[in-house]
Amino acid sequence: MAEGASQDLLLAAAFVSDAQYNRNIPFRTSPEAVRLYYLYNHWIMRTVTYFFIFLNLSLAVFEEPAVYPLPFLVTSLIEVLCLLVFFGRLTHFAKVTLRNVFWKDTKNICIMVAILLSLTDLAIYGVLRMYNMRSIRWSRIVRPIFLINFAESRQIRRAFRSIRNTLPEITYVFLLFMFSLLMFSLMALKLFGERNLQTAEGLPYFKNYLEIVFDLYVLVTTANSPDVMMPAFDFSSWYALFFIAFVIVNTYIFMSLFLAVVYNNYKKHLKNEIRKLAYMKHRKMIEAFNLLKEEEGAQFVVREARWKQLVKLVAPDISNSHRELLLCISDNEQKGFIDKKSFVQLADLLNIQVITLKIRSHPLGQWMPRVYKSAVSRFLRSMVRHRGFVWTYDVIILINAIFIALDEETPYISYAEWVFLALYIIEILLKVYTYEPRAFFGKNQFWNWFDTLIIFAALTATVLNTTLKSTTKYNSQQILDIVFILRVLRLIRIVDSIQRFRVIMNTLINIVPTMLTFGGLTLVVYCVFAIIGMELFHGKIQFFPASSNVPHALECGNPALKDSLFARGKYCKNNFNNFASSFIVLMELTVVNQWHDILCGGRSRLEPAKLYFIAFHIVMVIIIVNIFVSFILEAFFVEYSLEKSEVETAIEQKIQELGMGVQEDELQQEQLLDNMESAEHDLEGEGGTKPQSKGLVFKIASKRYRTVDALLQRMFEAEIPLEDEGPSFDEILNLSPTAAVPSNLTLENTA
Amino acid sequence: MAEGASQDLLLAAAFVSDAQYNRNIPFRTSPEAVRLYYLYNHWIMRTVTYFFIFLNLSLAVFEEPAVYPLPFLVTSLIEVLCLLVFFGRLTHFAKVTLRNVFWKDTKNICIMVAILLSLTDLAIYGVLRMYNMRSIRWSRIVRPIFLINFAESRQIRRAFRSIRNTLPEITYVFLLFMFSLLMFSLMALKLFGERNLQTAEGLPYFKNYLEIVFDLYVLVTTANSPDVMMPAFDFSSWYALFFIAFVIVNTYIFMSLFLAVVYNNYKKHLKNEIRKLAYMKHRKMIEAFNLLKEEEGAQFVVREARWKQLVKLVAPDISNSHRELLLCISDNEQKGFIDKKSFVQLADLLNIQVITLKIRSHPLGQWMPRVYKSAVSRFLRSMVRHRGFVWTYDVIILINAIFIALDEETPYISYAEWVFLALYIIEILLKVYTYEPRAFFGKNQFWNWFDTLIIFAALTATVLNTTLKSTTKYNSQQILDIVFILRVLRLIRIVDSIQRFRVIMNTLINIVPTMLTFGGLTLVVYCVFAIIGMELFHGKIQFFPASSNVPHALECGNPALKDSLFARGKYCKNNFNNFASSFIVLMELTVVNQWHDILCGGRSRLEPAKLYFIAFHIVMVIIIVNIFVSFILEAFFVEYSLEKSEVETAIEQKIQELGMGVQEDELQQEQLLDNMESAEHDLEGEGGTKPQSKGLVFKIASKRYRTVDALLQRMFEAEIPLEDEGPSFDEILNLSPTAAVPSNLTLENTA
Repeated sequence: MAEGASQDLLLAAAFVSDAQYNRNIPFRTSPEAVRLYYLYNHWIMRTVTYFFIFLNLSLAVFEEPAVYPLPFLVTSLIEVLCLLVFFGRLTHFAKVTLRNVFWKDTKNICIMVAILLSLTDLAIYGVLRMYNMRSIRWSRIVRPIFLINFAESRQIRRAFRSIRNTLPEITYVFLLFMFSLLMFSLMALKLFGERNLQTAEGLPYFKNYLEIVFDLYVLVTTANSPDVMMPAFDFSSWYALFFIAFVIVNTYIFMSLFLAVVYNNYKKHLKNEIRKLAYMKHRKMIEAFNLLKEEEGAQFVVREARWKQLVKLVAPDISNSHRELLLCISDNEQKGFIDKKSFVQLADLLNIQVITLKIRSHPLGQWMPRVYKSAVSRFLRSMVRHRGFVWTYDVIILINAIFIALDEETPYISYAEWVFLALYIIEILLKVYTYEPRAFFGKNQFWNWFDTLIIFAALTATVLNTTLKSTTKYNSQQILDIVFILRVLRLIRIVDSIQRFRVIMNTLINIVPTMLTFGGLTLVVYCVFAIIGMELFHGKIQFFPASSNVPHALECGNPALKDSLFARGKYCKNNFNNFASSFIVLMELTVVNQWHDILCGGRSRLEPAKLYFIAFHIVMVIIIVNIFVSFILEAFFVEYSLEKSEVETAIEQKIQELGMGVQEDELQQEQLLDNMESAEHDLEGEGGTKPQSKGLVFKIASKRYRTVDALLQRMFEAEIPLEDEGPSFDEILNLSPTAAVPSNLTLENTA
Repeated sequence: MAEGASQDLLLAAAFVSDAQYNRNIPFRTSPEAVRLYYLYNHWIMRTVTYFFIFLNLSLAVFEEPAVYPLPFLVTSLIEVLCLLVFFGRLTHFAKVTLRNVFWKDTKNICIMVAILLSLTDLAIYGVLRMYNMRSIRWSRIVRPIFLINFAESRQIRRAFRSIRNTLPEITYVFLLFMFSLLMFSLMALKLFGERNLQTAEGLPYFKNYLEIVFDLYVLVTTANSPDVMMPAFDFSSWYALFFIAFVIVNTYIFMSLFLAVVYNNYKKHLKNEIRKLAYMKHRKMIEAFNLLKEEEGAQFVVREARWKQLVKLVAPDISNSHRELLLCISDNEQKGFIDKKSFVQLADLLNIQVITLKIRSHPLGQWMPRVYKSAVSRFLRSMVRHRGFVWTYDVIILINAIFIALDEETPYISYAEWVFLALYIIEILLKVYTYEPRAFFGKNQFWNWFDTLIIFAALTATVLNTTLKSTTKYNSQQILDIVFILRVLRLIRIVDSIQRFRVIMNTLINIVPTMLTFGGLTLVVYCVFAIIGMELFHGKIQFFPASSNVPHALECGNPALKDSLFARGKYCKNNFNNFASSFIVLMELTVVNQWHDILCGGRSRLEPAKLYFIAFHIVMVIIIVNIFVSFILEAFFVEYSLEKSEVETAIEQKIQELGMGVQEDELQQEQLLDNMESAEHDLEGEGGTKPQSKGLVFKIASKRYRTVDALLQRMFEAEIPLEDEGPSFDEILNLSPTAAVPSNLTLENTA
């Protein structure tokens, strides 16, 4: 029975951790499957999967057309290895989940098809290559599928779903926009077509309908803004009205309309997703409860001992005191058991970062108490804690900024650099001396970490550079560049000294994790377009260094480009000759400006180039950039409007009740540490009687380190009553143990 | 006493109409002041004021540097005339409002100061001119103040207040943005400054710190996107990373941040404004009630007769039946009097457009009933009402589009134009024949009006053109242009045939009135910058037609511009030589692209040009365009989310109860008219017994013709309980008659 209990516990823990991280894997309940489930979610396994996904994607750098060429045999072996890993991961997943769920899930089918396609293509290409026949490695487009479809990439998948749901609405707006574009083009043809005007390059102006449509499409992106207007404007000032009307209608109104549609759908969709997630989370928690419940009077409960075992299993790395705190909150009345309602909250409670601050004396205070507590040392520490210390260093940073801007060559200034470095190092040492080192380098002390890393990296690089210079009389360019960048980055710290800036910076830091999702999204789109672009435009344009003597070097190796704007702007390096260049060209196209000129590179021989560039513009600028903007807008609105959620307040209340709290308004690091220090003094002086004598205080991790996703989830959870959809909350609470396996499988796809 | 009553009635009517149009003028209650108040708000007076405001603004076109030069005497006389009108209007306003309110209002002070400044400047300039000394007409910058500060321009003022309230927050973000810009510039200086790189034009690259800051500022607007990167990118591909980081941080994140801040503040501010407006409206209505109330049992009420007199005074142009309907709603139980609560709603009720549809037979049916009711005529009318009729004309429009795109010169095609014109005219005639003409050309039949106007304008222009051609063998270019544009505009109608497009179009049409506010805002900013720009850069650049033989014609008359990108792009006509050109240059700067090139025109001699352009960019692009985008976003979200407000539903219920309603889902014009027609048949056949026998039905003006402002007001009114601020609603209801004059004068400034 003890064996069975531990098995139940393992299973329950799996449910809870599934709920905690919103994984929503419908795993089997057999002991073996649960063990496999733990293995599947182990961080090493996930890291390995990601490593191989990115290895697979980065193969494009080494395959022809390559940035760093590797033999075909090597790249194909690596690709086969990657595919094997993916297959293994998929098999593992199949063993964990229920069979019928596995085969109904399009994600898994996608991965399998992608593996098969890649292998087939690789085989065909290999065979053809042996017979010296060149073919296209078309399966390379398929590679981003692995990034999207592995269960770990929940966020990217969510973004894709968001896009898919927005498509119908955006299509209507897009059609209307195209209609407007076609109408304006028709007007332009009628108005300017027979005037025999010429562009600045002497080409006929607005003669051909399709070219007008394209030119005006470019004007929507404002990329050819005055140029396209000038010939008509020179002819008659009144024609400017046509272009003004065009820009107002298409650039301002329609582009805002796209943003409005995308933002509206993004928000709507997000709400739905989070509603479903919350539903799944409750469901899993109830299942865990049903596994562990025992009868107590009229109701079912979970006893304290089992609850503790469960938490130890789910979150092995939280401290004992943290666990006690959670127990205090869950078992509010200290009855020795936890009821259903409190138990369901556990997943949320575990997600709240509570920082355990052990009040312990400084290590130096323990090792050499006499020196550390001497008058000089006390004065030093109080000095460091003083506001003036921060201000002094702000002034030093400003002076440093001026020195950086001055010329490097003057010897005094390069010596000054050493002085500044020394000052910064002294600052860090003083702070570590004053505050407890483990608190100073705490998990959430972003700026302390930032400072220390920057300073020591700069120190290392500067020393390295000086050594190199004195031994080889030669500045290493790479190291110097890094030194420069590090030096300037140091200045960022001054922002953190000003309260208003700090608020904005915190939001920006909060956004970073979710921005990585968009990084992933962009990566997928860029990969696909880069691979297509390389197939279409490879070798059309060559770049030669300025010293080259190759004929047509100025025309990018393509005589057709002679005297074009493209060659004149020295854009030769904007080409699709390898993966890295393609990425940079696509980046330039995303930024939109001059894209019609960059396009010239492709256009010189191929008309499809226009279609390629317009397709990229629609996907990247109209859809993805707008979603990105929507996301930033939403994140800021949430930051502006969100009050603390209920669950969090409950924890805080408990902390305060237990007398272990640190006031929210003392969140600033210095004050916090001051507070600790004074608590320490209390202990020293009076041998405190309060719970502080336990030697620890708790603090909710401050707002600045919450992720946007968590914020959103809390925001919408408050807004959407769970009863709206599916079984009511009470029904879920009374779910029978036989239904422990989710029967509502359609929900799974949403996770 | 009858005299006194009519005086009370006049005053009460003034209060109600003040509430209805949200004017919030704290007028005096003396009989004379009330009469002056009516005069002040008469549409002729307001139109005249606007006319002189725009006349005053447009003087810049005729003053040196002039588009159409007029003698100084003429322009100065016109200006004096304008100032006199403004002064008269202000005096009138002073007579209407309370004295202490008048002198506390900054609007009025502003106008007075502006008038004084303009007169002084005019006098000084005139005197100096007599002695042939040239001075600057600096007071011209003051002119937009009249547009902003006259009481009529409530919307523009609100937008300005919105901007002012956003400024503090946006300043912080802007400072952070500038900090980031300066940091990146410093890095760029260190990284690229000593590489001795050259730009495409052979200039030194990233050598001077201030120039780097400027170049990177331009990069934020993406205007010099690949160009600024190319030299570093050519040197080493890795440097592209620097620019990518820069664009992500500054262009994408910070620009979104600006939008987020502006949007958030815009919304917050709007809510406050509308809360205050609603409060003022209730207050005025209570005052009107207190003037008219009579005792009835335990409560005060307004009797039906007085109420009718009041409505007649406030809205003299609504029909008797409409007034009866309003009475039915207000006096729900037909008690012969209206209580306080219903009375307060009157202002909102009057604002709801109820369309009175008189069911009357077609005039032709009355004049020649036999012909109109013959079988042929009936068949014709049923044909026109058939869906196929609409489809047929959609096909005709598509064919027409193809013909327009084809070459004009072929004789068959120019004949085809006549055919199409004839077809369209037949369509309109058939529709007028089938539907009642007064219904067809109803107030809210936007598309019918649009069609008819376009077709008849095209007909007139085409006939005119043909006449000219046959008599003088000469095509008038202006007329031809108009014909072309009208022809293409005709095609828009096809959009209205597709349901999904119609929804989007309706929102766009709804937005138009409020967009005019932004037009006003833009006009103000443009005027100020154009006048400053003309003083700074006038004559720096000359434009010569292509055929000109003047030396330096290709360099825009400025040898310093030889071989510059500016001259090469043929941008000579982008100059500040007169008011019209300045506007177009500013428009190009708003669109942002190539603005650094346009700037070259100024830069050639003056460094302040950079500051001028950056200031314009901050004001126009960062603030005003973002507010414009916020506004469009908000308008669409409101459209997406708004259900019908309560007041409106009350009216609709009443209409339905009375059996005079037309179902909301029969809103489409054809169906509506069908419905009328069938009602007509009923009458003919049975001599109906229902209220339809009154011969009229009502219809709430469909959603598509509501203004965004009204929507917003209803949305926020539902959200914000009035009790939140100021006296509670009950308190307002019980306001004593002695407090009939608003005592809370601070609120006035918000209107």
